[in-house]
Amino acid sequence: MDNTIEPRKIGVISDGVVIDHIDAGKAVGIYKALCLSKVDALIVIAKNLKSKKQGKKDLIKIENKELTDDELNKIAIISEHATINIIRDNVVAKKWEVKMPEMIERIIICNNPNCITNVEPISTKFKVIDNNTRFKCNYCEKIQSKAQIKYWLTVQDKL
Amino acid sequence: MDNTIEPRKIGVISDGVVIDHIDAGKAVGIYKALCLSKVDALIVIAKNLKSKKQGKKDLIKIENKELTDDELNKIAIISEHATINIIRDNVVAKKWEVKMPEMIERIIICNNPNCITNVEPISTKFKVIDNNTRFKCNYCEKIQSKAQIKYWLTVQDKL
Repeated sequence: MDNTIEPRKIGVISDGVVIDHIDAGKAVGIYKALCLSKVDALIVIAKNLKSKKQGKKDLIKIENKELTDDELNKIAIISEHATINIIRDNVVAKKWEVKMPEMIERIIICNNPNCITNVEPISTKFKVIDNNTRFKCNYCEKIQSKAQIKYWLTVQDKL
Repeated sequence: MDNTIEPRKIGVISDGVVIDHIDAGKAVGIYKALCLSKVDALIVIAKNLKSKKQGKKDLIKIENKELTDDELNKIAIISEHATINIIRDNVVAKKWEVKMPEMIERIIICNNPNCITNVEPISTKFKVIDNNTRFKCNYCEKIQSKAQIKYWLTVQDKL
């Protein structure tokens, strides 16, 4: 490190993904949801960056990472208007805004203890309702809000 | 954001602190220990940066932040050779390596439930022993290792 200048260029990635326009304060939630503590590659989390559009925003860069559909859905649940930038050879090869699917499979656990998905080894399935704010279990019809989703990590991420 | 180039210069701070040379994988532990989720200023966490000295290292930048002695001690417990860079007007005004104190006050909770510090409103005090790896309670003499420190956050930090 240069001793006299604040280190500006940290965490430059030539290949990987940049998750941008994350709602301010939500980046660490995404870090947990994607179990990034287990990733050995370079990761940069920026919290409270200035944003013309959002006032403040968060951002995550992950080197050499491709996101699965389940991971994209987790990001959409946490921060509905996040944008995904695929970086290849230092340039943005693809860019899009995440989209909440009509149906969410696997990643949310039903908060009804008697639901068959909590008793039998069956994957959960939820219909996204009420303008993307609530999730209705396809099996027991129990509805939960975003704030109620507490157990939707399939792999518990120890920070 | 420029659409064609990977965003390189994120999280530049003109005033604040850069915690550098953090052992790889320990940055989020420091984030939790310093309760940074409650901080509204710009924060950048980089994990697994390349380092000549360490192979891999973590780094945290916090804008407009000064570290207290308790916070510096928390950092020393988590990553003994971290360096602190004070940034003022874009330059490193001061730089030093954290130092484990001989005695640690307040920030560790004694893991002996019968210790007076767990019964009466008395601040804990630990002697740092065995080459900075273990901590001996000044009151009940119970010794705990770094790995046993589970409850040393005075403010529980909800990520």
